[in-house]
Amino acid sequence: MLQSKLFSKTTKNLPEGEETKNAQLLIKGGFINKSSAGVYSLLPLGLRVLDKINHIIREEMNAIGGEELLMPTLVQRRYWEQSKRWDTDVVYKTGASKKQGELEYGLGWTHEEVIAAIAVNFLQSYKDLPKAVYQIQTKFRAEARAQGGLLRGREFLMKDLYSFHTDTEDLNRYYNQVIGAYKKIFKRLGLRALATEAGGGAFTKEYTHEFQVLNPAGEDSIYYCQKCDFSQNQEIYDVNRHKGCDGKVVSGRAIEVGNVFKLGTRFSEAFNLSYADSSGKKHLIVMGSYGIGPTRVMGTIVEEYNDSAGIIWPEAVAPCRIHLMSLGDSPKTKKESDRLYKLLSGRFGSDEVLYDERAAAPGEKLKDADLLGMPWRLVISEKTVAVKKIEIKNRASSQSKLLSEKQVIAVLDGK
Amino acid sequence: MLQSKLFSKTTKNLPEGEETKNAQLLIKGGFINKSSAGVYSLLPLGLRVLDKINHIIREEMNAIGGEELLMPTLVQRRYWEQSKRWDTDVVYKTGASKKQGELEYGLGWTHEEVIAAIAVNFLQSYKDLPKAVYQIQTKFRAEARAQGGLLRGREFLMKDLYSFHTDTEDLNRYYNQVIGAYKKIFKRLGLRALATEAGGGAFTKEYTHEFQVLNPAGEDSIYYCQKCDFSQNQEIYDVNRHKGCDGKVVSGRAIEVGNVFKLGTRFSEAFNLSYADSSGKKHLIVMGSYGIGPTRVMGTIVEEYNDSAGIIWPEAVAPCRIHLMSLGDSPKTKKESDRLYKLLSGRFGSDEVLYDERAAAPGEKLKDADLLGMPWRLVISEKTVAVKKIEIKNRASSQSKLLSEKQVIAVLDGK
Repeated sequence: MLQSKLFSKTTKNLPEGEETKNAQLLIKGGFINKSSAGVYSLLPLGLRVLDKINHIIREEMNAIGGEELLMPTLVQRRYWEQSKRWDTDVVYKTGASKKQGELEYGLGWTHEEVIAAIAVNFLQSYKDLPKAVYQIQTKFRAEARAQGGLLRGREFLMKDLYSFHTDTEDLNRYYNQVIGAYKKIFKRLGLRALATEAGGGAFTKEYTHEFQVLNPAGEDSIYYCQKCDFSQNQEIYDVNRHKGCDGKVVSGRAIEVGNVFKLGTRFSEAFNLSYADSSGKKHLIVMGSYGIGPTRVMGTIVEEYNDSAGIIWPEAVAPCRIHLMSLGDSPKTKKESDRLYKLLSGRFGSDEVLYDERAAAPGEKLKDADLLGMPWRLVISEKTVAVKKIEIKNRASSQSKLLSEKQVIAVLDGK
Repeated sequence: MLQSKLFSKTTKNLPEGEETKNAQLLIKGGFINKSSAGVYSLLPLGLRVLDKINHIIREEMNAIGGEELLMPTLVQRRYWEQSKRWDTDVVYKTGASKKQGELEYGLGWTHEEVIAAIAVNFLQSYKDLPKAVYQIQTKFRAEARAQGGLLRGREFLMKDLYSFHTDTEDLNRYYNQVIGAYKKIFKRLGLRALATEAGGGAFTKEYTHEFQVLNPAGEDSIYYCQKCDFSQNQEIYDVNRHKGCDGKVVSGRAIEVGNVFKLGTRFSEAFNLSYADSSGKKHLIVMGSYGIGPTRVMGTIVEEYNDSAGIIWPEAVAPCRIHLMSLGDSPKTKKESDRLYKLLSGRFGSDEVLYDERAAAPGEKLKDADLLGMPWRLVISEKTVAVKKIEIKNRASSQSKLLSEKQVIAVLDGK
């Protein structure tokens, strides 16, 4: 990618009311654009990050037998009424009720109702179970406060997985499998997410689990052990649950990046979703639901990986792995940079190499590179050309090195 | 993919009011599910078709310099007011205006306003032009009639590309480039789409172009020449425009699968989107917008490719290229089918091979295969195992052949 051709640019202008690091850095870097409070556009470099996050989530969902589908945003009022959730505060409602015969909708903020109604068509026998389906879809919530950048949007992306089982035992088995998949996902995304016990609200008396990333930008407070896996949301914190460990339990602010939920039969009852066992006897299907917010994950990654100069993208989700800089206006430098761009594009894919060939001052270009935060910065200048080397620097490190082309390739190959 | 594990199944139950072939076949095949009038879920096999359509569109958009981004659905009222489109009939409006200070939104049905407002941040100089960005995004229109299955939804997918230019000449150049890209896209999708002149409405006195696929399910009427490229929407049909050709002009029903539009400066004026030329003088940026509806394309493909038994997917968009059927319950047949499934999965990807290993009657399985419409049906039965052959049939052909494994692979390799 040629930087001079990019639609977006870095900017110093910040819209009002953006207090969080993730919003500030993502807007300054041209990754996102604020449309209104809690509503953002993903600009090309930002969409690349989101796509990489989604790709990792998809791989792990498919690995535990999840089939991807896509449900609607316009969810007709009758669905919500059937589950008694039409009057939930966060639902955006639409449909021009003025006109005769027009339908009313709640914009999908979660899809237990829709998926239960769909499943009735396909899940009828114990032989059809278990099943798991998921979608990655834009969701809507009428949040009163929407000030956390990508951490709390009125419109945001959600991966929601739903599972269907013959009984609680099979749900428990799959629930633990999903927890395993979530741990893999967050690890691949560079996030240390604590599986934190939380309350089940109206759904269940059992604990549910939230995946919480300790970070001062978080809205949740959790209590967690510094030694073992114990972690509980402050709302249900019970010191007696921490047993058989002498580690210290401390509290901290955290960002909830995912959750897993045993729904039981609440929705299968509302939508008459049942199966026949081998003797033909009918039972309600037992359900689970499991969420991850990819846009919130993106914001969390920025909150976790930044310094005073900008973002420090982990390699797995960086818009581009390599930022190639041509500094100065010597024709020799330009020629050598062009050659290297071609070589790197061939080897790593042109999408993974952002080439700064702009006619801008070296200081401005290096400042932009720090703000944009690609993992590997390669500099070609008169100085490097003279010694037939390339300057390479990892964004997370303060040291640059002068290496030969062969050595640089080896570093980028991960050797 | 193991057919016994699929979330969806074929079904004979059709919801009321589904008169079109595309809705009937897609629902019967378990590709989509109707949520409410004009609102559908894409089930796993259907989403695979949509993803393949989107992939082709993306490739051709990237090839003409389009950068992908993602704009919001919640478009605040002020955007629409600035362009005087708040009172458009088709806009779904939301936002709880009861509460103090809450925002009102129109659900995005097109994004000229949002992209013009974003572009102000990045396009300021003639050096920043031309640029082109696109998104593939769910759109909403409050259609009074929503009876065409995927042909006319209240919620549907849209690829919308927007381009920015210094002057009309450069817009015209790019406009023709987009027409070229659209021709490639529809050809790859197996659709013969006529570039049809249409009126520009309030935007322009020039003609715009619609891409129309002749089909009785279409809502448009067009006049087209049976010999040359002449094609006009009935609404503007002027017999005198057909010159220098002795071909006969006839009329027909058609489905609009895409359109291209010269916006001129209507939106750059509304959003104060201007650039400085090399002497520093300011000019309004000239814009174009270009749409394709991937869900409508999917419906159109089904309207074009079907017979009395079901869908006949073109290879480029089929959910799976290969449908492997194991018929009968002989252990030898099962063993041979399993072996072939493994072999084909390794060669063509397991996602491209749907393996019907269900314990169902041969007649039912073959009927399902015709309904689902994968391009290549391979049958393993006691009969084929006995002669060490595989029965292969193309869905579009009435003839099956008994071939050796080597010959079958050669056919699937396209040799």
